[in-house]
Amino acid sequence: METTTVTFFDLIRSELFEVEQKMRVSPGEHNPNLIAALEHILSSGGKRIRPALVLLSAGMLGADREHAITLAASVEMLHTATLVHDDLIDGASLRRGIPTINATLGSGATVLTGDYIFARAAYLAAEIGRQALMKIFARTLMTIVNGEISQMYASSSNDDGIPDYLERIYAKTASLFEVSTEGAAILGDVDEATLSAMKSFGCNIGMAFQIVDDVLDFTADQESLGKPAANDLRQGLLTLPVLCYLSSISNGGELRNQIAEQKFDEDALAEITSAIRSSDAIEQALDQARAFVEAGLAILKNMPANQERRALYELADHIITRNS
Amino acid sequence: METTTVTFFDLIRSELFEVEQKMRVSPGEHNPNLIAALEHILSSGGKRIRPALVLLSAGMLGADREHAITLAASVEMLHTATLVHDDLIDGASLRRGIPTINATLGSGATVLTGDYIFARAAYLAAEIGRQALMKIFARTLMTIVNGEISQMYASSSNDDGIPDYLERIYAKTASLFEVSTEGAAILGDVDEATLSAMKSFGCNIGMAFQIVDDVLDFTADQESLGKPAANDLRQGLLTLPVLCYLSSISNGGELRNQIAEQKFDEDALAEITSAIRSSDAIEQALDQARAFVEAGLAILKNMPANQERRALYELADHIITRNS
Repeated sequence: METTTVTFFDLIRSELFEVEQKMRVSPGEHNPNLIAALEHILSSGGKRIRPALVLLSAGMLGADREHAITLAASVEMLHTATLVHDDLIDGASLRRGIPTINATLGSGATVLTGDYIFARAAYLAAEIGRQALMKIFARTLMTIVNGEISQMYASSSNDDGIPDYLERIYAKTASLFEVSTEGAAILGDVDEATLSAMKSFGCNIGMAFQIVDDVLDFTADQESLGKPAANDLRQGLLTLPVLCYLSSISNGGELRNQIAEQKFDEDALAEITSAIRSSDAIEQALDQARAFVEAGLAILKNMPANQERRALYELADHIITRNS
Repeated sequence: METTTVTFFDLIRSELFEVEQKMRVSPGEHNPNLIAALEHILSSGGKRIRPALVLLSAGMLGADREHAITLAASVEMLHTATLVHDDLIDGASLRRGIPTINATLGSGATVLTGDYIFARAAYLAAEIGRQALMKIFARTLMTIVNGEISQMYASSSNDDGIPDYLERIYAKTASLFEVSTEGAAILGDVDEATLSAMKSFGCNIGMAFQIVDDVLDFTADQESLGKPAANDLRQGLLTLPVLCYLSSISNGGELRNQIAEQKFDEDALAEITSAIRSSDAIEQALDQARAFVEAGLAILKNMPANQERRALYELADHIITRNS
């Protein structure tokens, strides 16, 4: 698992272990099939980047350790629930290299498993007993779902390109990074300005994280992705590397429609992928990710100068330099 | 709408109106398709029996009016979200006589619409700012989902009959009635004994409500049900009227397996339905429902003797006597 090779995780290793346990604790007697499905998803790992962000932000701001662990587990469960439903909607058969719940159990059980994980996430958030936290938690779920619905109903002719892309990745990814750092700040009982700054820090880091994910879809191989390479392109998703590439070529408009309407075979897909890989588009997209990270780091400068802050610098750096 | 003909609703008519508004208030700019789907579901009505239970219980115990309205909206939204996902899983095409979301929008949008309504329900519950409430809210969602998963994986050979049925209807229905009255008691800042009694009151009323629903599946016509009659039987569900009938005939075990395995055509279905209708099974099932209502009413005797308590007596009576 990646977590063993990145140093910022070292500082919170024992907390992350407790987060893993917390995600598995069932507050009642529940169906063994449900518990098995949950274990299947949780044991497949995942980067645990959101829990790390919660724990380091909370540590930096002097928040209660137990509450931070519970919040980290809650945020990761919320993330996991949305993945379970997303994979069902997309018909994805692999995630992190293992079969998805929908590929294993069918759609009805997948809907319910996702619902159960939502409930567990809400239960964990409620355990902390902070109203502000519960509200941003519920609001984030609304933001994520609203983003997915918007994407589902979006027609390619209405898409503005990069502004719409940024809105999509905010809803899809940055909103949950934002709730991680804002939630940690709430636990730290900080003033309004710090709360707002920490919210912005998480948002910026999250934007960068998703852009890098979208770049890796082109540059990483299938093995390290745990799913087919150029998967987004195959699904007709106009991610930042694609948008940068399209704006650099003369027949961009035409190609854009072909991609959005998924009008290409595997050969054409391989050709476009190769063209994007060898163009400046990858570097342009990464520049945008770096700009978001820089904005995040500028915010960190005003935070308490402790080891957790140093680890957050590392975490931000890792988001850009990671290769999976 | 039924709400205009039943007197206990009169006492809370203005509050119920505010509940309807509260369910529709969107805390942000959300996709018009999502808002339209939500409006489609909410405008189809529903009995609003859970909001009535919240409002009358809260009123009886002197709880804050605004908080009671918010809790009532939250409970009804949670109920609505589970219906949206249930109809998808069951492939139901009608609910309350109008097309379901899954029949209209397809499965992906239905999963997301349900998720969004869950989030809205959680957001409303969070607005009240009571930790105990958030916890029972999340726990109830886990109970409901766990019950559905258990039913999905249950094999007919493992079914104990009535005890398993009672467990199923607790998870499916009574748990949400329970959270309605327990939640109202939390808002009323009552002592532990009253809290526990109010929880039990809701549970008993909820058990009765579901049994009567299961009886109406046999005795009511398609028009008043808003879905096909004998729908449960068609789906192989062993509800209380069926279980009572099976235990009264000599070849009950054989017929039970045929029903559970859905091994019958429409003619056979009509024959079984007719046999159950004209047997003592209907009255036996209603006796069980009456026993639950009696248990609920016994609890009410110790509660403040005011107009809300009188309305709750009426509500309990209505649960038994209603014909749709």
